[in-house]
Amino acid sequence: MIDVKKELARMSEEMDPAIRSYIKDELPENLIEACRQYPYAGGKRMRPAMVLSACGAVGGNKEKALPMAVAIEYIHNFTLIHDDLMDGDEKRRGMTTSHVKYGMPTAILAGDALFAKAFEIMANMDIPAETMRKAMQIVTVAVWDLARGQQMDVNNENEGQVSMEDYIETIRLKTSVLFAAGAASGALIGGANDDVVKAVHEYAMSLGVAFQMYDDILGIFGDPSKTGKSAGNDIRKGKSTVMVCHALKTIKDTKELETFKSILGKLDATDDEIEIARGILKKNGSLDYAVELATKYTKDAIAKLDVLKDSKDKEFMVALAEFAMSRDV
Amino acid sequence: MIDVKKELARMSEEMDPAIRSYIKDELPENLIEACRQYPYAGGKRMRPAMVLSACGAVGGNKEKALPMAVAIEYIHNFTLIHDDLMDGDEKRRGMTTSHVKYGMPTAILAGDALFAKAFEIMANMDIPAETMRKAMQIVTVAVWDLARGQQMDVNNENEGQVSMEDYIETIRLKTSVLFAAGAASGALIGGANDDVVKAVHEYAMSLGVAFQMYDDILGIFGDPSKTGKSAGNDIRKGKSTVMVCHALKTIKDTKELETFKSILGKLDATDDEIEIARGILKKNGSLDYAVELATKYTKDAIAKLDVLKDSKDKEFMVALAEFAMSRDV
Repeated sequence: MIDVKKELARMSEEMDPAIRSYIKDELPENLIEACRQYPYAGGKRMRPAMVLSACGAVGGNKEKALPMAVAIEYIHNFTLIHDDLMDGDEKRRGMTTSHVKYGMPTAILAGDALFAKAFEIMANMDIPAETMRKAMQIVTVAVWDLARGQQMDVNNENEGQVSMEDYIETIRLKTSVLFAAGAASGALIGGANDDVVKAVHEYAMSLGVAFQMYDDILGIFGDPSKTGKSAGNDIRKGKSTVMVCHALKTIKDTKELETFKSILGKLDATDDEIEIARGILKKNGSLDYAVELATKYTKDAIAKLDVLKDSKDKEFMVALAEFAMSRDV
Repeated sequence: MIDVKKELARMSEEMDPAIRSYIKDELPENLIEACRQYPYAGGKRMRPAMVLSACGAVGGNKEKALPMAVAIEYIHNFTLIHDDLMDGDEKRRGMTTSHVKYGMPTAILAGDALFAKAFEIMANMDIPAETMRKAMQIVTVAVWDLARGQQMDVNNENEGQVSMEDYIETIRLKTSVLFAAGAASGALIGGANDDVVKAVHEYAMSLGVAFQMYDDILGIFGDPSKTGKSAGNDIRKGKSTVMVCHALKTIKDTKELETFKSILGKLDATDDEIEIARGILKKNGSLDYAVELATKYTKDAIAKLDVLKDSKDKEFMVALAEFAMSRDV
């Protein structure tokens, strides 16, 4: 059984020199520093790991896919920088966010510049131009969809109650598409045919949904000392999640529903109130429902990999899907 | 002699259906609307016109370059949306700016989405993949440089006095690189060899500098009813321009220098004070100096076109360079 955390750490060590090699010393210094801040700070590196393992799992040369892995990680980081600004977040995993550290204009420009650099890296990949074109088509659509997903997320927050379908569509666009673009482009660079590229794409789409759902579970039931997020904040922010969608449809007791609604979105809710909301989610089966649904997506993801021959990389991809549902961080 | 304004208007009519064809009805509606706002609002369309004319001037089929023209216009508009947000501007040519109309998060996302769409369009161009790769390399570097130029602009504003060299480097990056990427990729798609692509790139770099310098002149000496900009605002904002750089180095009279410095950057300067500052710029030859320098860049630009055979498109490119220096808007 693969230890996914260890394997991700090992892959990070392999990828980090590349991740740190593309942003050269140029002027102006403050922009270059801001471009480096997020990608150099680390993270789980799940997306670039998916590029490399998908390339390997189809029998490709991972070296050829390394620039694509870096590009996907830069795109991920560009969206994080803009996301933190939009959300007004001051911290990310203990790090001061870009717009707080460098100011709003620099945060916007650093995101834009990382985006441009990602596509520059792709345009210069040592692969046939026709393959590069296909990879480019996959990734550009993904970034377009990502922006749509983030806008849906913003709209959901302003609109209050959101249907389960809308919520899942939002996380497909906001989270899954970049996982999927990474996996599909890795497979493509590895020489896979269209059917395999499609299967790997679908694997990562489902994995992304499971990953985000489990993130939402950790956001409410996780250990803050491990997740680095104050548990309960998602409740205070009134964030629509599978659990919240389920609870609002399921709670029968009128008084309990009122209590739950009064805590949801209450920015100054006390820890006791958060505990009450958590209790209500558990009692009404909303936590169980979310875990079951995420498990279903994980299984769907793994089933897509049937088209691949057995290999160490395929094993890692299976383990990564399971990890999406079993991590504590 | 070509009437550039008329020709640009004619080309706009030709290009506008394409410019309006790539952003489909999708969800969420507010993001799609925000993506359409700037590119659909019109503008001079100088950048896409340059793509098409460069393609035509090297003997290429302009139809093939049309998607690239749209992509360059989308990139231009994405930078305008982010620029308006960074500058806190509420109006652009009479139109309410994106972040005021749709809110900050949507303005950020609309810019990002337009950027992604531009590259999606490029990735799907009906041209050989190897040509697409080269065009992609040119454009991605341009957007990276553009972000650097915009950051320099922000830094210049915070730092106060800027050297002439730094100012010109800023406008090369902030303005010229996208003109140049447009012209070079148009020539490339038209089938030009590397030398011609390079010459056309250099033409547009010089043209861009002349264009921006003349923009600065119009910003201080232009007719507000034509430019749509309140004349004097660049003085009130203390914007470094060729004229200002020249004046600060040239003014001999200590008292006059003090007067000039006291008005420069004075946000509530009266119209009389602006008139005094204008007088000082004229008297010390700073206006003449800027006009001469911009003229030199225009001539340099036109000289680069010697590699091209005579054609209607080449004639337009020459006229466009002259127009950069003779327009009233």
